[in-house]
Amino acid sequence: LLNKVKKQIYMRILLAGFGTVGQGFVEILRDKQAASPGAYDDIQIAGVATGSRGRLYHPAGLNLDDLLRISGTGDDTLADYPADTDLQRNWHSTEAFIRECAADVVIEATPSNLETGQPAIAHCEAALETGKHLVLANKGPVVLAFQALQALADEQNLAFRYEATVLAGTPAIATVTELLDDANVRAIRGIFNGTTNFMLSEMENGLSYEGALAKAQELGYAESDPSADVEGWDAAAKVVILMASVYGQSVALSDVDVQGITGITAQDITDAQQADERYRLVAMLDAAGGSVVLQRLMVDDPLYNIQGATNAIVFQTDLLGDVTLTGAGAGRIETGYGLWLDILFLKRRQML
Amino acid sequence: LLNKVKKQIYMRILLAGFGTVGQGFVEILRDKQAASPGAYDDIQIAGVATGSRGRLYHPAGLNLDDLLRISGTGDDTLADYPADTDLQRNWHSTEAFIRECAADVVIEATPSNLETGQPAIAHCEAALETGKHLVLANKGPVVLAFQALQALADEQNLAFRYEATVLAGTPAIATVTELLDDANVRAIRGIFNGTTNFMLSEMENGLSYEGALAKAQELGYAESDPSADVEGWDAAAKVVILMASVYGQSVALSDVDVQGITGITAQDITDAQQADERYRLVAMLDAAGGSVVLQRLMVDDPLYNIQGATNAIVFQTDLLGDVTLTGAGAGRIETGYGLWLDILFLKRRQML
Repeated sequence: LLNKVKKQIYMRILLAGFGTVGQGFVEILRDKQAASPGAYDDIQIAGVATGSRGRLYHPAGLNLDDLLRISGTGDDTLADYPADTDLQRNWHSTEAFIRECAADVVIEATPSNLETGQPAIAHCEAALETGKHLVLANKGPVVLAFQALQALADEQNLAFRYEATVLAGTPAIATVTELLDDANVRAIRGIFNGTTNFMLSEMENGLSYEGALAKAQELGYAESDPSADVEGWDAAAKVVILMASVYGQSVALSDVDVQGITGITAQDITDAQQADERYRLVAMLDAAGGSVVLQRLMVDDPLYNIQGATNAIVFQTDLLGDVTLTGAGAGRIETGYGLWLDILFLKRRQML
Repeated sequence: LLNKVKKQIYMRILLAGFGTVGQGFVEILRDKQAASPGAYDDIQIAGVATGSRGRLYHPAGLNLDDLLRISGTGDDTLADYPADTDLQRNWHSTEAFIRECAADVVIEATPSNLETGQPAIAHCEAALETGKHLVLANKGPVVLAFQALQALADEQNLAFRYEATVLAGTPAIATVTELLDDANVRAIRGIFNGTTNFMLSEMENGLSYEGALAKAQELGYAESDPSADVEGWDAAAKVVILMASVYGQSVALSDVDVQGITGITAQDITDAQQADERYRLVAMLDAAGGSVVLQRLMVDDPLYNIQGATNAIVFQTDLLGDVTLTGAGAGRIETGYGLWLDILFLKRRQML
C-alpha cells in the first residue's frame, strides 16, 4: 500500500509561470490523461504560480480543464478558479509558494531573463533546497547558474532537466546527452533561432529586413522588442546551455562571439542567391568555445535547406559522422512537449 | 559483495556473427574500455560464433585485442586465437553455442536473409529461450519474426532490441520509441537505403545507371549482387521493422508496395534537374501500410537535400510537426554504434 501511495503522489507538479508554454504543457497532460485513462493519473498539477495573476495550490491536484479555461484570455486571472475548502491561494511570492507547497517537481516556465536570471534562479534554488526535482523551459537559470543548480541537484539526487530550452520539444538535449554521448561529439552547429531564420527566408522571397521583421511580429514569432532574436542573444543562450551540458564548460553569454542579422540588406541576400548560396545565422560550439555567426552557406551544407521558423542541430561525431536533427524550435505545444519529455523521464525512472 | 559480482558479470555478450558489424562493435568496446578505465569492465565478449571460421567461448571473457587481430584479414580464422585452458572451441552449430554458453546478452550480427530469416531466427529463439537478452544488427529476424520474438522476450522480461537495423547507429529507433512516442507519430517517410541514394546522387553528377552502380560497388556500398538495394527490398525491410515497432502492425515484406531504381535513366534525372527537382527512393509508412517509391521531390521537401550515402527519416507528428533525423545508414563503426546503444540501454537499466 505504501508503495502504491508513494507512486500515486510521486509526480505532484508545481508550475512556476503559466504563460503559453505552461499552458501547452497542461494541455498535453490533459489530452494524455483523456487518451489513456489511468496511465498518467500519477502526474498532477498541484499548484500554479504566476507573477501577477495569482497563485493556486490544491493538495489533491488542480482540475486541468478549469485551469485551461481560466487561462484562455488575457483578462482572466487565477482568481476565477473554482473555490474549494482545500484550495489555497495565499503566498506573498512564487519563491515562498515553491518552498512551502508539498510537491515532487517544479517546472520553471516564467519569462526568460538573460541578464540576471531572476526571479527564476531563486525559484530553482527554492525547488532544489526543498527536495523537488527541477524541470525548466526558462533559459535564464540554465544560462546563468548551470553549475550551481547541477551541484545542488546532484547533492540530493534530484533531477535538473531543461530539454525545452533548446529547440523546444525537438529532442536535441536528450539526443546528445542520451543517444550520442558515446559517439564523441566533437562539435555542434545549428540554427537555434526560428525568428531570424524565418526573416532570412522571407528576405529570400523578396521582403526587406523591415518587412520581414514586421511579418515575424505579425505571426507572433518575434517580440515587439526583437533584440534578443535579431541580435543573436537567444541563439547564444542555447550555445551556453549546450557548452555546459555537452562539454561541462561554464561560459558566460559574454564569452560567446555573437553576431546578429541586423546588418543584413536585401542586396546581400540577392548576391548570395545569385551564387546559389544562402545566409543563415549559424550557432557553433565545441569544447573550446562558441559563437553565433551570420554565414553564407553553400548548397551542400546540411543547414542550407533549413527554411522558415524551423531549427536544426548538427552533431559532428567521431563514430557516426554528422547526425542532424531538424524540427520546431518554438511554439506553445512544441515547447510544452519538451517539458513533457523531462516529466516522462522522471516517471519512467521511477517505474524502473 | 553479491551485488558487486552480479554487476560485474551482468553483460557477458555472445556475438553471433563476426563480420564487419560485429568487429565494429568489438572495436568500440575496446576503445571505450581503454578511454574510461573501469567504466565498461562489466561488458565482456564471452563468446564469438561464426558460420565457417569457428567458435570461441571463454568464461572470463575473450581478449578484445586478440579478437580484433585475428579478424584483421580474410585468411585468418578464430583458430588463431591464443590457446588457454579455459577456452572452449567445440560446438557443432551457432544455435547450440548460444544455448549452451553462459551469458547475459546475444548479439545477432550474422548476414541478413530476408526470405527465410534463418539460421538467425533459430539463434534468436535459442537466446531468448535460455534467458538471454537479444540485440540485433541482422534485419532478417526482425522483419520475419517480430511478434514471436517480442512475445518470447516479454514472457521472460528480456530485452529485444534492434537499433542497428534501421539507419545503423543514427538513433532512429530510440528517437521514435523513446523520445517521440508521445508526440503522436502519424506517419514516417525517409531515405532508408544509402546505396541507391548514392547512385541517384552520382547520376545527378553525370554518371549513367551502370556507372553509378559500378562506383557504388567499387566503394563497397553495393554488393556484387545489388538486387536487395536497387530493387528496394532493403528499404522495404526497414519499413516492415518500423511498422512493427512504431505501430504494432505485423506486415510481410510482400505487403509493402515496393519500387526500385532499376528503371531510371540518365534522361529522367536530367528532366528532373531541369525542373529543379530530384529523384529519391522514398520509403513511407503509417498505421495502415507502407511503400517504397521512386519519387520526384521538389526543393522544399525535407528529403530533397539528402545526398550521397546519407539516410534520413522524417517523423510526421501531431504535437511537434515534422522532426527529421539525418545521418549515416551503414558502415562498420556506424552500425557497431547501433549495437552499442542497445547494450548501453541494458547497462543503464541495470544500474538504475
